[in-house]
Amino acid sequence: MEKKRSRSQASSSFLESVTPSEREGRSGTQSSHRLLAYSDALISIIATVMVTQRAPLRHPHTGRGESVQLLLTTKIAVYLMTFLIVTVAWAAHIRLFQVIVRIDDCLALMNLACMMLITFLPYTFSLMATFPEKVLGILLFCACVMVIGLIQSVIVVYAFSRPFLLNEQIQISENQTFYKHHILKVIMRVPIMCLFASIFSFIFFQLSYVLLAIVIFLPYISQSLRWCRSKAIGQVEDTPDSMLFYTYHPNEPLSKERVEAFSDGVYAIVATLLILDICEDNVPDPATVRDRYGGSLTAALQSYGPEYLAYFGSFATVGLLWFVHHSLFLHVTKTTRFMGLLNTFSLAFIGGLPLAYQLTHEFPRNSRNELEAIQISCVIIFFAGIFQLAIWVVALFNERETLHPYVRYGGREHVFMLAKLALYPCVALGTFFLTCILSKFSAPIFHLMEITVPFAFLVLRLLVRVGLALLRLIFCPERPDPRTVLEEEDEETRTPFSALVT
Amino acid sequence: MEKKRSRSQASSSFLESVTPSEREGRSGTQSSHRLLAYSDALISIIATVMVTQRAPLRHPHTGRGESVQLLLTTKIAVYLMTFLIVTVAWAAHIRLFQVIVRIDDCLALMNLACMMLITFLPYTFSLMATFPEKVLGILLFCACVMVIGLIQSVIVVYAFSRPFLLNEQIQISENQTFYKHHILKVIMRVPIMCLFASIFSFIFFQLSYVLLAIVIFLPYISQSLRWCRSKAIGQVEDTPDSMLFYTYHPNEPLSKERVEAFSDGVYAIVATLLILDICEDNVPDPATVRDRYGGSLTAALQSYGPEYLAYFGSFATVGLLWFVHHSLFLHVTKTTRFMGLLNTFSLAFIGGLPLAYQLTHEFPRNSRNELEAIQISCVIIFFAGIFQLAIWVVALFNERETLHPYVRYGGREHVFMLAKLALYPCVALGTFFLTCILSKFSAPIFHLMEITVPFAFLVLRLLVRVGLALLRLIFCPERPDPRTVLEEEDEETRTPFSALVT
Repeated sequence: MEKKRSRSQASSSFLESVTPSEREGRSGTQSSHRLLAYSDALISIIATVMVTQRAPLRHPHTGRGESVQLLLTTKIAVYLMTFLIVTVAWAAHIRLFQVIVRIDDCLALMNLACMMLITFLPYTFSLMATFPEKVLGILLFCACVMVIGLIQSVIVVYAFSRPFLLNEQIQISENQTFYKHHILKVIMRVPIMCLFASIFSFIFFQLSYVLLAIVIFLPYISQSLRWCRSKAIGQVEDTPDSMLFYTYHPNEPLSKERVEAFSDGVYAIVATLLILDICEDNVPDPATVRDRYGGSLTAALQSYGPEYLAYFGSFATVGLLWFVHHSLFLHVTKTTRFMGLLNTFSLAFIGGLPLAYQLTHEFPRNSRNELEAIQISCVIIFFAGIFQLAIWVVALFNERETLHPYVRYGGREHVFMLAKLALYPCVALGTFFLTCILSKFSAPIFHLMEITVPFAFLVLRLLVRVGLALLRLIFCPERPDPRTVLEEEDEETRTPFSALVT
Repeated sequence: MEKKRSRSQASSSFLESVTPSEREGRSGTQSSHRLLAYSDALISIIATVMVTQRAPLRHPHTGRGESVQLLLTTKIAVYLMTFLIVTVAWAAHIRLFQVIVRIDDCLALMNLACMMLITFLPYTFSLMATFPEKVLGILLFCACVMVIGLIQSVIVVYAFSRPFLLNEQIQISENQTFYKHHILKVIMRVPIMCLFASIFSFIFFQLSYVLLAIVIFLPYISQSLRWCRSKAIGQVEDTPDSMLFYTYHPNEPLSKERVEAFSDGVYAIVATLLILDICEDNVPDPATVRDRYGGSLTAALQSYGPEYLAYFGSFATVGLLWFVHHSLFLHVTKTTRFMGLLNTFSLAFIGGLPLAYQLTHEFPRNSRNELEAIQISCVIIFFAGIFQLAIWVVALFNERETLHPYVRYGGREHVFMLAKLALYPCVALGTFFLTCILSKFSAPIFHLMEITVPFAFLVLRLLVRVGLALLRLIFCPERPDPRTVLEEEDEETRTPFSALVT
């Protein structure tokens, strides 16, 4: 059966790749699925790259006495900005390939060239951040962005000259030329702003930074401007009704597959960042073992104890946050731009986790710095979890379109999903306050949290059942057995769903 | 339309997740697609982790005079062994989740626990490699493998107690209990061998290594033993005819999706490994720029010049090798175990590329070491390409089952695919011999290759046309116009295909 299935899968991917136009003789068009997955993997690695820059932490002149917060501010700011820039580039990439749904060899190669420059962006940005008053950093960054913009415009022009590569809706649309110009206009805005920024860098470089900041927030600015205009003048609709792409509306659809692929990449990199470190640094040197530990490997490894604990703790935390994300997106049927933004915030915090864990075992036990490092970890976990919860809350506002019936209000998985999403924020908040009160026991409390949370997930379903039963018992003891109520709700939610499917 | 499409996609993933059994009241079963993609990402990162251990290269006592080969032998051996171990674990994971096609929360959590230990394996192995005569390394490694085996057995027992999680073929099979015992037997072989290995490590540790080597090559050994037995005694068939999983036959199907996902992960990590380095080391210190370069950032960056060139070169090479892989797998309809093995070999060489590129710019210009580093790069690229070609050759042996009609013998993309696959091995071989003859110009020749190959891919289709026309002109000038021949071939190949689809 598996054989049959894989064959039928193959033949369906086959069907995708063989469009009517292909039968007309144009060979070499392909479904873009794998190209996009590869691009997502590249971008997610690059987005988290900045966390691995731990050089300043190991610098001799930092000194153990300095406060962790002070030490980290610049580092975190640079990391967050890079993450932002890369995710903006990623969102533009999604938008482009929602319009172009099929590729050929030429497009694949152009996309690879584009990726090469996107992966180079963080370097130019960190150059810019290290030497803010030098022109070269700004110029390099702007040059990269401009070339990326040019390649993307070439991709658009190329794809519109071969309409069978386009989204079917645009293929059959009468406004194809309008679409083309609209998309080109949106894409070219960014390189043109960068051109101005690079020119101004010679005259008055502060203005360049303002321009570059505008580039990043351009979609939000233009969206709010349009909103203001529509409120002031009335309904200004200069786009055809069918306009679905490049609208920058918060409800603009964002490919769910790609949001998942990007998130998976970030979670996977973050989960393994610490083991990369451990492999590089924590295999003791044979000479050291002989001289310092009297040949006892066990004694040598014991000195690394906290790092193993940190590794397993971080892997478990990242893994479980991935698990929550996975559970949530399993029941999400459509991703909007706003949900994508919240997801990016959540991922940005998760990208900070390896740094926090490294801090946790970098400082001597029971020092003020260790306490602070643990508190930073808690804060990061809290925000990563809260933004996941926010995705769900936003989805609930428009639940008919975005959610599976099971997790809508009254669906049978609704409460369970809420419990899953709320577990990490609650635990992190609890741990944070506990470490504030019992500052002497901060490390043991934190490790206890890491160890108990996975088990909490295992018994969560049971806990939710008990909790619900208790709530019912307290607030409405006269109502019938909750089980039957749930069953009835099931019936209600299932009927429209099966109607939808059949 | 995109909206509609994403919705229909969602509802189909929906259909997958809602099995008949779920309608019977068992909630929480899910399609395993994303869990597997995440596992693939984790494993591919870990498989390439060992390449990042560049510590020995930067050690002060290595000295520039030593030969590169000598310096690298141990390093490469450890890297290849780790890659092998991790890919064996990955193959076992594929095999397991070809039987279990649906997951629930419990299985997802158990799988994450399994992943945590698999990502820890490389560390225990490098411990074992650094201290071969110590018991602790062997014990840790065996403990990891045993726990992984135990978790996998629990997963199997759990899944067979909930048959709706299984592959449909096993679900309807009468031999369910036989399957269960067979799979458990295959899975438990490895931890039991490891148990023996850990016991023997106290008595005679060399024997442990022999046992561990047997564990890795077990499938191949048992397969060849079975083959010998069948030749000696006759047809020994102790499995039901429908047995498709855990047969260890070279034609056993391997999920094509997962082979692609794993390959994408490796290519993505390898493409970005160098930029990780560059970001960490090559942003100059403001103080250094002021003191040494008289405040000129341009001068400071010029000293890093070769590293940028190496980055763009390596990204282009890895990207294009990915592109070839992508083109090949687009036309592969079924992946077998043997093709998976060849793919692993190709990936193992690609994982070595960042190391080779680092070597290229690590040594002074025109030294013997630089020449050797460039030659190593050529050898690596050659083998990575040759194994990709080998996948295609193997697929051609059984083309009816494994290949799309377009790329079979006589298909219209056949020659073009051959040209794509042969380009990198040929160019690498040519560069290798050129650097041998013109040893003075080795670096310029190598960089020239890096720059020209992407353009070669762009004009490849044209080159193939011209080449074919020339060949026809030389060997059979009396035959009709090649275009019409190709068209006729097209018709031939297209008819059975459309019959297959409709």
